[in-house]
Amino acid sequence: MKPLKEMTKEELLAMKESLSAEYKEAQSKGLKLDMSRGKPGKAQLDLSLPLLEALSAKDEMMASNGMDVRNYGVLDGIPEAKLLMAEMMDTTPEHIVVFGNASLNIMYDTVARGMITGFLGETPWCKLDKVKFLCPVPGYDRHFAITEHFGIEMINIPLNSDGPDMDMVEEYVNNDPAVKGIWCVPKYANPTGISYSDEVVKRFANLKPAAKDFRIFWDNAYCIHHLYENQQDEILDIISECEKAGNPDMVFEFGSTSKVSFPGAGIAAFASSVANIEDMKKSMTVQTIGHDKMNQLRHVKFFKNRAGLDAHMMKHAALMRPKFEAVLKVLNDELGELEIGTWIVPRGGYFISFNAMEGCAKAIVQKCKEAGVVMTGAGATYPYKNDPMDSNIRIAPSFPTPEEMAEAAKLFVLCVKLVSVEKLLEA
Amino acid sequence: MKPLKEMTKEELLAMKESLSAEYKEAQSKGLKLDMSRGKPGKAQLDLSLPLLEALSAKDEMMASNGMDVRNYGVLDGIPEAKLLMAEMMDTTPEHIVVFGNASLNIMYDTVARGMITGFLGETPWCKLDKVKFLCPVPGYDRHFAITEHFGIEMINIPLNSDGPDMDMVEEYVNNDPAVKGIWCVPKYANPTGISYSDEVVKRFANLKPAAKDFRIFWDNAYCIHHLYENQQDEILDIISECEKAGNPDMVFEFGSTSKVSFPGAGIAAFASSVANIEDMKKSMTVQTIGHDKMNQLRHVKFFKNRAGLDAHMMKHAALMRPKFEAVLKVLNDELGELEIGTWIVPRGGYFISFNAMEGCAKAIVQKCKEAGVVMTGAGATYPYKNDPMDSNIRIAPSFPTPEEMAEAAKLFVLCVKLVSVEKLLEA
Repeated sequence: MKPLKEMTKEELLAMKESLSAEYKEAQSKGLKLDMSRGKPGKAQLDLSLPLLEALSAKDEMMASNGMDVRNYGVLDGIPEAKLLMAEMMDTTPEHIVVFGNASLNIMYDTVARGMITGFLGETPWCKLDKVKFLCPVPGYDRHFAITEHFGIEMINIPLNSDGPDMDMVEEYVNNDPAVKGIWCVPKYANPTGISYSDEVVKRFANLKPAAKDFRIFWDNAYCIHHLYENQQDEILDIISECEKAGNPDMVFEFGSTSKVSFPGAGIAAFASSVANIEDMKKSMTVQTIGHDKMNQLRHVKFFKNRAGLDAHMMKHAALMRPKFEAVLKVLNDELGELEIGTWIVPRGGYFISFNAMEGCAKAIVQKCKEAGVVMTGAGATYPYKNDPMDSNIRIAPSFPTPEEMAEAAKLFVLCVKLVSVEKLLEA
Repeated sequence: MKPLKEMTKEELLAMKESLSAEYKEAQSKGLKLDMSRGKPGKAQLDLSLPLLEALSAKDEMMASNGMDVRNYGVLDGIPEAKLLMAEMMDTTPEHIVVFGNASLNIMYDTVARGMITGFLGETPWCKLDKVKFLCPVPGYDRHFAITEHFGIEMINIPLNSDGPDMDMVEEYVNNDPAVKGIWCVPKYANPTGISYSDEVVKRFANLKPAAKDFRIFWDNAYCIHHLYENQQDEILDIISECEKAGNPDMVFEFGSTSKVSFPGAGIAAFASSVANIEDMKKSMTVQTIGHDKMNQLRHVKFFKNRAGLDAHMMKHAALMRPKFEAVLKVLNDELGELEIGTWIVPRGGYFISFNAMEGCAKAIVQKCKEAGVVMTGAGATYPYKNDPMDSNIRIAPSFPTPEEMAEAAKLFVLCVKLVSVEKLLEA
């Protein structure tokens, strides 16, 4: 096969005819597959079942600080859970607050706190005429949903293979005091799978924000979520880099065990400077008496430490790898020479990001849907669900089985080809 | 003994001398007791230990709607948990959203939602010059902390033995559009232990608020927390009363199993009209992917239904009763005839509310502290920690043992007597 753009109209028409026939046949199969969300598969959930036995009625119900984990109290997490989450997030326990079952909730509450009380004595954002966040794109739809919910203006920043376009980030952050935050997924980014280079992390740490209360929202969701034992991305610890750069309070980091233990019943953590944590606790103490310490202790007893987490993540990797490889093989085999799409081969995380020809993403997702394969909505990876190029599609291979995944990927590439041919014929 | 007020100066002086000697002796005992918070005792926590075995690795991890409770999803709670919480709160599942481990968190988030997005299309409160809440007093310090945190003006409303002064409530709510809410603990109120009469509940349901977005914050924290098997308070279901009165959207109800299962690891619920729940979900879906469904299923498997909850609460009652009775006996024996304090004998809940002579509460709490017994801070039961009479003291008998409780109560009455005598000598 040659690149589609080099084909004659006749070749394209012939191709359209045979692809349409293939698509009709695929439709008749009655597929029902979901590649829309980064949801662990059943076999992954089974890996953590022993967690349920890690805290039993026969155990001492005491945290290492002597607190009964069943009772009220301990706003910021039991010490051993702080240590575990610190090890997971490559920081130290004094930087950690352990929360409930979802880091998304911490992010929402943190933006809400910016709006309502402000950070470290600065004016609450709700009192300002304009608040802006930078959004590296493509990115995570639930981040953008939070900032949109609070009426914060979102500005697209291109995400390169080593991180966001830092010239543009510096230009905005260092000059515009209305820019109060940036959403980052620094490792195995959602959806592109790239990790930030050391240079990018250092440039982040050395920002000179026009706004004193500018914060980097560092969603380290995939910090230990490697696909391979020997090819692993590593990123610098943003908290210590910010300290070194004299910006200790500039970052809010988020992490969770949602894709380590159970998505519905894990533990989540916030990491930041001691000053930010003290500031946050002033609101937290009004909001809650404390999070689920029994689940914190259960996690510590099961995972023990970073080595325990890493070993567990390799079991996840063994289940995830075949699914990723199934998709990548189909993409490579079927689209490799056609030049109608690009994708990055990730070494971790939960997604493969596919860039179709401009103006094709919505039509591809729609065609997939009509043949029984649900993808993340086209545009979802951009603020306001608006992908200006209508090009990016997020593929989430984790939930189906590898066999289902190969089947779904075949339908996907068929739709990519069909929509691309139609697009070229229109032109 | 005769009432203190009828004593001569000489009699008071003699009394002061002997009480001071007694106090000095008590101080030398080195007591270290905490009656400050409504914290269940260890034996109560042990009652729910089998909960830990209720969901084991061998179980099906499916909710009745076919959802895997370990994975993402189900914003409003699994159906069987909705049913359990509905039964506990005397309502039906369509009125229920199940949350995480703390109803306080739901209350905070609900007030935050009023501030940020507003209710059912009304103007967010943060855009208004003035927002006011009515606060029946004495009341729950953490309620007042939430409204104070958001800069909401709090207005004291006297709490009578059958509920808040409804003439005053109607006067404010029906005429002042800045009045957006009222904090209520309708059953076994914190701290007085009284329950709202049917007439009071009906008057609540029939309010004609000047503000469309006025809401009753109905914290039904002690709905099944009786002290006796045969003497139990019952209140009308506010949700159906509001429906009948044509005010279906006027109430937000809150409940939890914090003092049923584990204070740190229970499940909490929000109850309201379907319209309010749909409105709330628009924010919830941005804030979280869902709460801990494994803990929801664990609770359902352990308690099963309302009968299971009620039977369990009688075990709590058996542990709580002797503590309450120990305090009440000391109050009665030592203060019965002196006319220097009043208290209500509660039939449930977690507190005994003591009213000292005007201007004595702070001094009594301070004296207790100096002899090793920590009480809830005087004034804590009023907005802004300001008890205008300096009279109310909340006694929380749950945490110490009955023997410790009797000892602490003896010190307490000694301090009450001593401070009262000093007060009368000043006059």
